[in-house]
This record gives sequence, structure tokens and C-alpha cells, in this order.
Amino acid sequence: MSKAHSRLREHLHTTQLLGSIQSSLYYDQNTAMPSGGASWRGEQLALLAKLLHGRQSSSDYAELVAEAEADLSGDAPPQTKRNLQLLRQELQRQQCLDPALVGELATAQAEGYAVWQRARAQADFSLFAPVLERLVALRQQQAAQLAPVEAAAGQARSTWETLAQRFEPDISKQRLAVLFAPLSQRLPKLLDRASSIPPGASQAWDLAHQSQEQLCSELLDGWGYNRERCARSLSPHPFSTTLGPSDFRITTRVVPGQPFSAFLATAHEWGHSRYEQGLPRSGEHWFPWPLGEATSMAVHESQSLFHENRLARSAAFAERWYPHFRQALGRDPWGGALGFWRDLNPVRPSLIRVEADEVSYGLHIVLRYELEIALLEGDLPVAELPSQWNRRLRELMGITPAHDGEGCLQDVHWSEGLFGYFPSYALGHLISAQLSGAMEANLGPIEDRLANGEDQMLVNWLAERVYPLGRSVNAEQLVELVTGSTLTAEPFLTYLEQKLDRLIG
Amino acid sequence: MSKAHSRLREHLHTTQLLGSIQSSLYYDQNTAMPSGGASWRGEQLALLAKLLHGRQSSSDYAELVAEAEADLSGDAPPQTKRNLQLLRQELQRQQCLDPALVGELATAQAEGYAVWQRARAQADFSLFAPVLERLVALRQQQAAQLAPVEAAAGQARSTWETLAQRFEPDISKQRLAVLFAPLSQRLPKLLDRASSIPPGASQAWDLAHQSQEQLCSELLDGWGYNRERCARSLSPHPFSTTLGPSDFRITTRVVPGQPFSAFLATAHEWGHSRYEQGLPRSGEHWFPWPLGEATSMAVHESQSLFHENRLARSAAFAERWYPHFRQALGRDPWGGALGFWRDLNPVRPSLIRVEADEVSYGLHIVLRYELEIALLEGDLPVAELPSQWNRRLRELMGITPAHDGEGCLQDVHWSEGLFGYFPSYALGHLISAQLSGAMEANLGPIEDRLANGEDQMLVNWLAERVYPLGRSVNAEQLVELVTGSTLTAEPFLTYLEQKLDRLIG
Repeated sequence: MSKAHSRLREHLHTTQLLGSIQSSLYYDQNTAMPSGGASWRGEQLALLAKLLHGRQSSSDYAELVAEAEADLSGDAPPQTKRNLQLLRQELQRQQCLDPALVGELATAQAEGYAVWQRARAQADFSLFAPVLERLVALRQQQAAQLAPVEAAAGQARSTWETLAQRFEPDISKQRLAVLFAPLSQRLPKLLDRASSIPPGASQAWDLAHQSQEQLCSELLDGWGYNRERCARSLSPHPFSTTLGPSDFRITTRVVPGQPFSAFLATAHEWGHSRYEQGLPRSGEHWFPWPLGEATSMAVHESQSLFHENRLARSAAFAERWYPHFRQALGRDPWGGALGFWRDLNPVRPSLIRVEADEVSYGLHIVLRYELEIALLEGDLPVAELPSQWNRRLRELMGITPAHDGEGCLQDVHWSEGLFGYFPSYALGHLISAQLSGAMEANLGPIEDRLANGEDQMLVNWLAERVYPLGRSVNAEQLVELVTGSTLTAEPFLTYLEQKLDRLIG
Repeated sequence: MSKAHSRLREHLHTTQLLGSIQSSLYYDQNTAMPSGGASWRGEQLALLAKLLHGRQSSSDYAELVAEAEADLSGDAPPQTKRNLQLLRQELQRQQCLDPALVGELATAQAEGYAVWQRARAQADFSLFAPVLERLVALRQQQAAQLAPVEAAAGQARSTWETLAQRFEPDISKQRLAVLFAPLSQRLPKLLDRASSIPPGASQAWDLAHQSQEQLCSELLDGWGYNRERCARSLSPHPFSTTLGPSDFRITTRVVPGQPFSAFLATAHEWGHSRYEQGLPRSGEHWFPWPLGEATSMAVHESQSLFHENRLARSAAFAERWYPHFRQALGRDPWGGALGFWRDLNPVRPSLIRVEADEVSYGLHIVLRYELEIALLEGDLPVAELPSQWNRRLRELMGITPAHDGEGCLQDVHWSEGLFGYFPSYALGHLISAQLSGAMEANLGPIEDRLANGEDQMLVNWLAERVYPLGRSVNAEQLVELVTGSTLTAEPFLTYLEQKLDRLIG
């Protein structure tokens, strides 16, 4: 390694340290901090954002990158080149941003989150509207500041596309139109058909907090959860985060009346964490270089959804877990594993995205994706968001929220100014399905493997092929590399059709 | 406020933000972090320490202080002058320190802590001796580097005295000799007398984790614990910390076979937190200026000890809590409130400081205080620490540890190079007793107030007189200001004698 390369590595290492401090504060904020701590925490996070932005856009850092580029010999490994390309791209983006905007955004995000919590609790959109307007305006400014970089790279990107790059590198509205069209078209029909699935449970049931906790523990222990590297906690919204190379955290929540919620969220967040735990951490080109990072939110989501839907919601898993739940509950409202499986897989139009089933989930994303483009690219005033939300939801699923708390105020993302994030969830479903197809071509039906308790074989398949790629390829390249085909919605829709057939029975 | 003053204020505000980030990471480390996160967390903390040291010793900061000093008009309020004096003093100290030494110390502390954990677990002092030697040498260097500042201020301080200033401003060995002499003299006799206290419980008992948790909750709720400003957690060692102006955390632990441990630790840590919560946070001279900070570790400890010993271990409290514990336990090993009170107040020679009673605690401190002075000022080679520990412990309490794990390896402080800290614990006992005397002169006997459930009246007395002083006075000045008398050991020893009389009955 050249001297310039070492110095750059050193710099990135410290940047990683600072970034992980930010994540640690975020984890504490969501799992332990009393509400009174919010405004000070906001100041702490804004300070760290400023320090990080300083490091990532300083002339010292720019010199380090330039020196490493100048040092690059013609026969340097492709990984070295890719790392430098990714760093150069990010540097250009950071240099375009006005530090004042970075600070304002951090403050607006913290305030947005605090106000959104109140607005949602009171189901009062008018509380939230002013902060949302401010966040939209700040993100528009951000996109405008970033435009020259995109233009210089030969990419004329819209406001929404520019903002979406940090979640989904190289994504475009045109590509999403192709991928999502079959979803808007075919999912509503599947949702109609799902109404003929027989009910799973003969009566309502719920599980004590402690029992749910116990079932989540058993689930994770069976999947190789290691207490020396991982910690779990409760938070208002389940999430997964990496706080250090050997420090992984996942959270869940217990929702009264939704006894599968904690169990499925645990499977989901563990899928995220497994991906992070499997990212390449050693070797000259990986940690702390860009190549050692997750490549996109969609790929991240594909891993969590695989654990949630292909493993935890499978028929074979239902067969295995039915006795555990029966025992925890002390009675049997399902009358057999098939009923239990159906109960684990309700498919029906629903108001809340995070509780949605695999069919309606895609429609929730289409709704948000369309609205956030309209908000950011000037076609939708913030004040009209609730009415447009309700109108489009009726078209897609035929239902209407009783109030905005279960409508356009339900998600945290916009409260933190995260626009461009939602499509990654739907792409994750598509990628998970296409990877699963390739996995089945190699290993035989997933259901068969799970019936034999060979969960680890399935996860190892991903750990060998997907996790070690890091950021060496983008999401679509990854799919092509691992499955041999271009990403389409077809495997996902076929999977859903077959699953519905089995659920209808 | 002058412009220079505002700029300085801004700088201090950011320094407070960085410091509180450090505390947040420490809180997480002790309450949530998996063990695998330790080395990365060490790197994060070292980075923050470097950033903080940079801020506190930079020429930019020095200029800000100098400008504010130059701007100081003759009729400036005394608080402004005091703030600038305290900042100047701390700046001079930071500037004297070689950054290389600061880095070496941070590394040696992290290593010291890790090695100490192993050494204590294996009760093997020889493992710990080399790192302790290094820490002693580094602290001696630190004291030597700080000497010119002390000399310039007209204070010729010894090595130990110099190091103790950060915990106990203005403390001297001469003053401690006066204050501690009556402890070494009279506590052993009290300990002898305590052997005639009748046993409190007729048989061993313990409480389920959940019941202890419940009792701690009730205790805090009765004391005005506010979930919007405070959070609680479990940690291997109980502690209290302030993470923001409205973000206070306390922790406790549940120790098998010691069913009062969590309850008393909760009272203790709440006392620390109440002091922090009562520090002046608003007004031109307070937060984020030095005046808004705690004045010394001894004053801090006096507040925690007041809550633990004067409130939670009082006879009136025992009367009130006896039914709660009886109900939680489901039986009655005490046969009445008096037995329960005695059980809450065992007094006997003991090996472990953190579990010691009010009488033997002072002797534990005398032991450590004498030994650390000998270590630092050249009279005691590290290798002889275990034998000297055991010799002096026999003199003071007539007992001998079976191994060094329950002897000189028991405390964490020296492993992190914290020399000069221990005396603050004993001073806290003295201060708590003297403040209690003045309180009783105002409000009548504490026991009577507690019997009437007027706990809040007692705490308010402290909140009005002690907490708002911040760093405007040092510990001894505070005692003199609040009680009208110079600090002595007399009120503490008198209190113990009277309590023993009542316990013997």
C-alpha cells in the first residue's frame, strides 16, 4: 500500500468512528433516551453531522483522495480503483453542499421527528405541515446543490432521483416505472383473490409481553444469534444498526393485539443484521473502504424480507413453530398448522405499511413513491397531502383511513426528510424473490430445506454469494451477478400467486 | 454580554455537546453494548478525548478566553469573574499537558481496565502490577507537567494533591489529615461496639428480580422521578450520569443474595441525579459556564449518601417500607419494623468497599488514601501493594482478604489511573452529616419529617441551598455557607454513635 493510500485509509477509519458515534446516539435515542433529551440530542447530532461533513468535504481530505488517485498505477487491482471512484463521487457531492444547509437539515430533521411524534399521536396533520414544508424545501435546495455533480457525471437527474441516490445508487424514475408497473397492475387483483383465503384462527388471541420476548429469543438462538456481538432492545419502531465492526444491535416492539408483530419484526431486523455482519470487514480493499459497505437499501431490504417472508412466514416454519405458539398461548385457536400458517399470512387491504402483508405492501410503496415525487418536484402542495393520500389509497386498495394518524402521518421517513427511500422496500421484495429463485435452482425448494431444519444452509447461500460483494456492484448488478438475469417483477409476482394458491388451499 | 463573551459562550456550548456525547457512549457501553463492541468503543472514546483536548487547549480557545478577560470591565458581576478564573485555570492545566502524554494515558487507561478485569477475576495481582506501574509513572509525569501552573498560582502541591484537584478543588493532604484523624481513631471503636447489634432477620432471604425492580420504581415515583427527563437501566456497576440539560440516567444492578442492593443503589444514584438536576441551567452565568457544574465529587457524594443513608436507611423509612418488602417477599423474616431496620443497616467489618456500611466505609477510604499517596509519592513499590493493603486492613478492621480479588484488586479506580478520587467518598459522608445537622436545626429531626412522609421538604431544603451554588464555591466553602460552620468529622461521628445506640436498642 502506498503512503498516500495509508493516509487515506487512516482518514476513512476516523470518519467511520465518527459515523458510528452518530449511530450510537441514534440507537440510544430510540431505545433509552427520555423524551426531554430530544432537543439536546438534536444538537449533538447536528454537531456530529457538521464534523462529518467537514471531514468528508475538507480540502485536506480532497488532497488525500487526489494523492491516492495520482499514486494509482495502471496495474492496480480493480477494487482499489472502484474504492477511489466511490470516494471521488461522494467527495464531489459533499463539496457541493453548503455547510449551512447541512446544519439546517440536521436541525430540521430533529425537530421534524419530535413534531411528527406529537402530530401522529394527535392525528393532527396541521401540526406537522410546517415542518414538512421546511424539510421539502431544504431537500429541494440540497438536490439543486448536488445537480452540478450529477450533470458532470453525465447524469441529468430530477430532484427526487438525486435524493434517492444515497439509498439506491443509479436508480431512475424511468427504471422504476418499468419495475413498478406490473405491481400497480397485478397486485390489486391478487388482493381481490386473497379475500377467499379461509380464516386462520377461530378467535382473536394475544400473547403476554414475556412470552413474545421468549419466542423472539428462541427464534434468534436457532439462527446463531451471538450475545457477544449483538444486543437487542425495545423501541417504538423496530430497526437494525451497526455500531462497530463487532457491535450489532436490533430492536423490536410488542404491539397489543398483534402477537406476531414482534416475532416477524425480529426475523426482519435479524435479516438486516446478518447482511451487515456478513459484509467484508478484512482485506486491503474492504473495511473501512466503501467496498466494505452495504450497496443499497433495496439489497438490505431483500435480506430482511427474505428472513421475514421466505423463512419466518413459510409453511414449513409455521409447521415447526405452531407447537411453540400453542404452548405459549395455552390454547389452540388454529386447529392445526395450516390454520396457524394462514394466521401468520393474513392478506387483505390494510392501512398501515409496517403491518402490511406481502401483497398489499407493494401498493403502499407505489402510493408513497408517487406522492413524494409530487411533493418534491412541485406538483403537490404539502397542505393537499392528506386528501391525495386518501384518494390514491382508495384507488389502490379501496380503503380510507379514519384519520391522518393511520394515513399520511403513519411513517417516520418524511419526518426526518428521508425522501427517495420508500421504493427500496418494494425493490427489496423483488430482489428477495429473484434471489430465492436462484437459491432454489441450487438447493431445491426453500420449503423443503426449512422442513428439514436446514435454515442455515439457505442463509449460508446468501452469506457466500451476496454479503461479500459489499459495494463492488450496485443492486441491479448484484441481482444479475448472483441470478444470471436482469431484475424483473416476475419472480415476485409468481411467488405471490403460488403462495395465494396454497393459502386458499 | 460582550461579543467576546458570546463567542466564548458558543465555544463552551459545543464543548459541552462533545463531552455529553462521550458520556452517552459510556452509558451505552455499560447498559447495552455487547462485549464484542469494546475495542471499537475504545477507539470512539479516544477520538472524542482527542477532540475535546484539542478544543480545550487550542490557541483559538486561548484567544477567546484572553479576549473575554480583556473585555472584563471593573464592575462586571463577580460570577463573570469567577467563570473566567475557572476557565483560565483549566486552560493553563490543559496547555501544560503534552498531547503525547494525554494519548498515552488514554491508551494505558483502556489497557489498565481490560487487564484489571482479568486480574481481578483470576485474583492475580502479578498480571495487574505492570500496568499499574505504568499508570503510576504516567500520572507522576502528569503531575510534574502541571506543577508550574500550581506554582504560578502560589500553590506548592505534592503529586497526589495535584492529581486530586480535578475531583476535589483546593484539597490538601494537611487538611485531610485533620479531617480523617478522628475517623482512623474512632471508627474502629464504633465497629467494635456494633457487634452487639441484634440480628435483623431470622433467616436468609432474597427477592425476585421483578420484585426488586418494582420496589425501586415505587421508591423513585415517591421521590418525584419524572420519566420525561430521566431513564433507568441495569449495569454491572450502578452509576448516575447527565447526558443533556433534560436527560438524566441512573442505573442499578440486582445482586443475588443481596436483596437491598438494588434498592439502596437506586436511592444513592437518585441522590447524585437530583443534585445534577438541580444545578443552575439558566441565567447568564450558568450553563454552559463552569458555574453551572457540580463543584466537587465530595459534594456529589454527600447528596447520594444523604439519599441512601439519611433517607432510605432511616428508621422512619424502614417503618414505611417494611410492609412493602414483607408483601414482595410473601413472608416476614424480621418480625417487625425494628428487625427490618436492623437488616437494612448491618454494621460489621467487611472486605468490600462498595458493600460496606456507614461505619466501616470510612476505614476503607483511609486505607486506600494512605496507600495511593505512598504509591504516587514514592514510598511504596507497586509490588508491595498487596502486603501493605493486608497489613493496614488488619490494623483498621482486624480482617484479612482470602485473595487479592477481594483485597487490593477490588476497585476499578486505580485500573483507570484515577488517583486522588477515594477521599471524596469519605468527605461526602462528613458533608452529608454536617448538612443534615443544619437541616435538622431548620426543619426538626429528619426522622420526624420522614415519618410524616415529608421527604420532599427535606430534598427541597437541599435543592434551595446546595444545588443552585454550582461551582461558585468549593466543597468546604459550600459547607460553611450552608451550615455556618467549618467542616469537621464531628457531626458524622455523632450521627453514627446515635444511630448505633438506636440499632443496639
